Amino acid sequence: MDVVDRLRQVLPESVVLSDPDRIESYRYDRAMFCPAGVPAAVVLARETAHVQAAVRVAAELGLPVVPQGARSGLSGAANAIEGGLVISLEKMDQVLRIEPVDQYVVTQPGVFNAVLSRAVAEHGLFYPPDPSSWEFCSIGGNLATNSGGLCCVKYGVTTDYVLALEVVLANGEILRTGRNTVKGVAGYDLTRLFVGSEGTLGIITEATLALRPQAQRPHTMAALFDSAVTAGEAIVDIVRSGVSLSLLEIMDGTTIAAVNAYKRMDLPADAAAMLIAQSDTGGEAAIQDIAKVAQLCTDAGATDCIVADDPLEGDLLLEARRAGLVALEQLGTTMIDDVCVPRSRLADFIAGVERIAVEVGVTVGVVGHAGDGNMHPTVVFDATDPLQAARAQTAFDQIMAIGLELGGTITGEHGIGVLKKQWLAKEIGPVGVDVHRSIKQALDPLGLLNPGKVVP
Amino acid sequence: MDVVDRLRQVLPESVVLSDPDRIESYRYDRAMFCPAGVPAAVVLARETAHVQAAVRVAAELGLPVVPQGARSGLSGAANAIEGGLVISLEKMDQVLRIEPVDQYVVTQPGVFNAVLSRAVAEHGLFYPPDPSSWEFCSIGGNLATNSGGLCCVKYGVTTDYVLALEVVLANGEILRTGRNTVKGVAGYDLTRLFVGSEGTLGIITEATLALRPQAQRPHTMAALFDSAVTAGEAIVDIVRSGVSLSLLEIMDGTTIAAVNAYKRMDLPADAAAMLIAQSDTGGEAAIQDIAKVAQLCTDAGATDCIVADDPLEGDLLLEARRAGLVALEQLGTTMIDDVCVPRSRLADFIAGVERIAVEVGVTVGVVGHAGDGNMHPTVVFDATDPLQAARAQTAFDQIMAIGLELGGTITGEHGIGVLKKQWLAKEIGPVGVDVHRSIKQALDPLGLLNPGKVVP
Ligand SMILES: Cc1cc2nc3c(=O)[nH]c(=O)nc-3n(C[C@H](O)[C@H](O)[C@H](O)COP(=O)(O)OP(=O)(O)OC[C@H]3O[C@@H](n4cnc5c(N)ncnc54)[C@H](O)[C@@H]3O)c2cc1C
Ligand SMILES: Cc1cc2nc3c(=O)[nH]c(=O)nc-3n(C[C@H](O)[C@H](O)[C@H](O)COP(=O)(O)OP(=O)(O)OC[C@H]3O[C@@H](n4cnc5c(N)ncnc54)[C@H](O)[C@@H]3O)c2cc1C
Repeated sequence: MDVVDRLRQVLPESVVLSDPDRIESYRYDRAMFCPAGVPAAVVLARETAHVQAAVRVAAELGLPVVPQGARSGLSGAANAIEGGLVISLEKMDQVLRIEPVDQYVVTQPGVFNAVLSRAVAEHGLFYPPDPSSWEFCSIGGNLATNSGGLCCVKYGVTTDYVLALEVVLANGEILRTGRNTVKGVAGYDLTRLFVGSEGTLGIITEATLALRPQAQRPHTMAALFDSAVTAGEAIVDIVRSGVSLSLLEIMDGTTIAAVNAYKRMDLPADAAAMLIAQSDTGGEAAIQDIAKVAQLCTDAGATDCIVADDPLEGDLLLEARRAGLVALEQLGTTMIDDVCVPRSRLADFIAGVERIAVEVGVTVGVVGHAGDGNMHPTVVFDATDPLQAARAQTAFDQIMAIGLELGGTITGEHGIGVLKKQWLAKEIGPVGVDVHRSIKQALDPLGLLNPGKVVP
Repeated sequence: MDVVDRLRQVLPESVVLSDPDRIESYRYDRAMFCPAGVPAAVVLARETAHVQAAVRVAAELGLPVVPQGARSGLSGAANAIEGGLVISLEKMDQVLRIEPVDQYVVTQPGVFNAVLSRAVAEHGLFYPPDPSSWEFCSIGGNLATNSGGLCCVKYGVTTDYVLALEVVLANGEILRTGRNTVKGVAGYDLTRLFVGSEGTLGIITEATLALRPQAQRPHTMAALFDSAVTAGEAIVDIVRSGVSLSLLEIMDGTTIAAVNAYKRMDLPADAAAMLIAQSDTGGEAAIQDIAKVAQLCTDAGATDCIVADDPLEGDLLLEARRAGLVALEQLGTTMIDDVCVPRSRLADFIAGVERIAVEVGVTVGVVGHAGDGNMHPTVVFDATDPLQAARAQTAFDQIMAIGLELGGTITGEHGIGVLKKQWLAKEIGPVGVDVHRSIKQALDPLGLLNPGKVVP
């Protein structure tokens, strides 16, 4: 039987999309240059039972299943597979329960990160993981990629906030992992096995996330440098000093110019790099932290340090930073690296990226979560020119290679998807690959869930 | 061939123990009432290659392998299996490398927690997870059980500090998980799958652990109550207030008396419960935090609040708390529960434990990491009296049942081992059990690693 007919037997009419025009918009995430097929159908699940039913149909017919959140991913992980099913979680978008005393929230996966953050803020609570894409990415996607963000330097990443998950397994069964308590060691840490598994081990249909009390209003500063490498050295000094920051981000001159053009902003156009730092420790302590960071930047060779007394100014700086990747996308086709290096090697990494850009002859905009050592050197090029496209790929690869050489990882937060599968094998080695395969096999013996992604 | 002879072919003489007298001391951990066999040999590994060689011999001969740290565990997880191998990591006890800028330490597994903590403190760094047993438990055991401790209420548990592991797999291969960077999402989170797996998935031979800058000298207070339930209510109020504490512990009257007797201390003998709270935010902020907690305790009905201005007084209170379980062990045989409940339910839990003690007719000392909702009601009894032993088991089980009823977990930090396997099945349900089995099967298809532990 035709898969669409079979799906319509077990699911409400409105849940199953088969119209080619509508399906088209569910084919790609935001990574450029990653292959995607045309799925046979898109299931717009409204409840866990819909996910179960769709997975069972896929198992019955031997069809691949791609779970999708908001398709803001940058590794092709959410790209559709030819003739398979897409199960979109975008309609499962309710925040189910907020527990102010126990400080957790129970949510469906399709809720946008910013929507959840605002919902819990109304209760004086704080969900820290805040990817730049927070206005257009889903919590389910954040979980499946273990997203980072701007305030991770102080508060950690998505996995640090996941207490419990409801997951539909490849056999259609419902697994509940974890618990609502702060601590717990009953059995294997299945929760964190699913976090970051990019939809290859199960489909997350509900999550319980830990919250914190709302942080203090942050103090902000920006430091300008006439060399990105010098900015990198300042970061190493800041990390070494032990000062507690809630945010430490970098944008280079290329990115500043792109943001100015895209957002009609007025960031200092002649700086080769800008650091943005925040402290949310509150009161006098925050003022002192920020003063200390300004001093460290000046000592390292900053040309200017601007302390943003007005909170609105601080917000504006963050908005500029968040727009970095999208602004670079306006300049041409992009290949976005996501290397994370030990923080002591950050200046070396930036210098290496500059060298690669010159040697290969491409434009690379550097933007990233500097305080974590997680950088997004972004190769910008004209994809219609085959020579440029080849150079872009070369630079993209060399940047990962230098990341590994410096003791880092090829991906700090964007994940593997289809884009970096071969690089994953390099990073984790043959025993690592074997273990990945055996875990994939254990949880998805028929290879139905997002096949061809992650596992080399 | 005899297993000891076979081991001696591949390992240095001094590494293989077969003398019955010496082997005897490697049979049990600290859990009472858990079965243990007599192993055929104990391998005192000095390096990773010894672990590999021993695992390969075990695989060849089809013998079970029990990894052991310092045998301070409280669930029988490290207990030897009849005729099998014990691989002890106690001689792999070197701290290998401390990186002050990138803030991590590379260590062998046999190092005691307190030894590692002191080593990094010399560099102004701080390894937070601090089980009460820190002077006599190993980092490898902490990793394998995902240990908690006293300052977890602010800083999290072991798994929150693990960056990378070297693991000897059941087939004798060496797997390296994780990375040295702050962030990273390259592939599945294998690191955290091994953390808390109680030696059933692999043997940890090296670990890279994240560190923090040394915290400020803490301010301490103790509050006395004439009812443990009232103390529980005070805890809920403290949690609700959002005040940031680095420690919040409870001891009931039974435990206070036991500590006074065991440590020749002079804790207030007539209190039904004592809370100990610390803030390490430093300076004025810490003083304010502690004052606020004192006020909340007073409002909740504390009979007395003692602010320990002298740091030595604070240390003494902590020493008393850390001695809690050992002191109770002096009173008779113990069965130590480890329930963790949502913090809002803590008073209900304590009331439930009191009711069980009365109804079943046993003595239960209550001590625990109150700020996390993780409590250790400890049944104390005379094991030579079968009636008392039966009652103890009943109370032990009823305490777990009430923990689950209140939305909690049967184990916050001590793990499953052999003691709570059937309870694990109750907590995680049949699908959870299936997934545990398939992961165990994927990583250890012959069932060599700590068989009979954890997985129901
Ligand atoms: C401009 C821009 C800025 C960005 N900034 C950041 C940043 O700062 N930090 C960061 O970490 N990322 C960032 N990203 C990447 C992206 O937003 C994140 O990876 C995000 O978590 C993806 O969420 P999504 O809902 O869009 O997921 P999708 O792209 O739809 O899916 C991502 C992966 O998750 C899987 N998945 C989605 N939902 C589920 C589910 N319910 N169950 C199982 N699997 C599921 C998919 O199969 C896929 O493998 C940025 C992207 C853009 C375009
Ligand atoms: C008085 C007292 C107080 C305690 N307080 C606390 C507390 O506050 N918080 C807390 O969490 N626990 C506490 N415990 C329990 C215990 O100390 C911890 O579980 C500790 O982590 C065990 O470490 P160990 O080295 O003694 O491990 P062991 O008891 O030797 O082993 C524990 C488990 O880990 C496995 N294992 C050990 N080393 C390795 C390795 N290298 N690779 C793979 N598997 C390995 C063993 O097979 C076993 O399954 C306490 C115990 C006592 C007796």
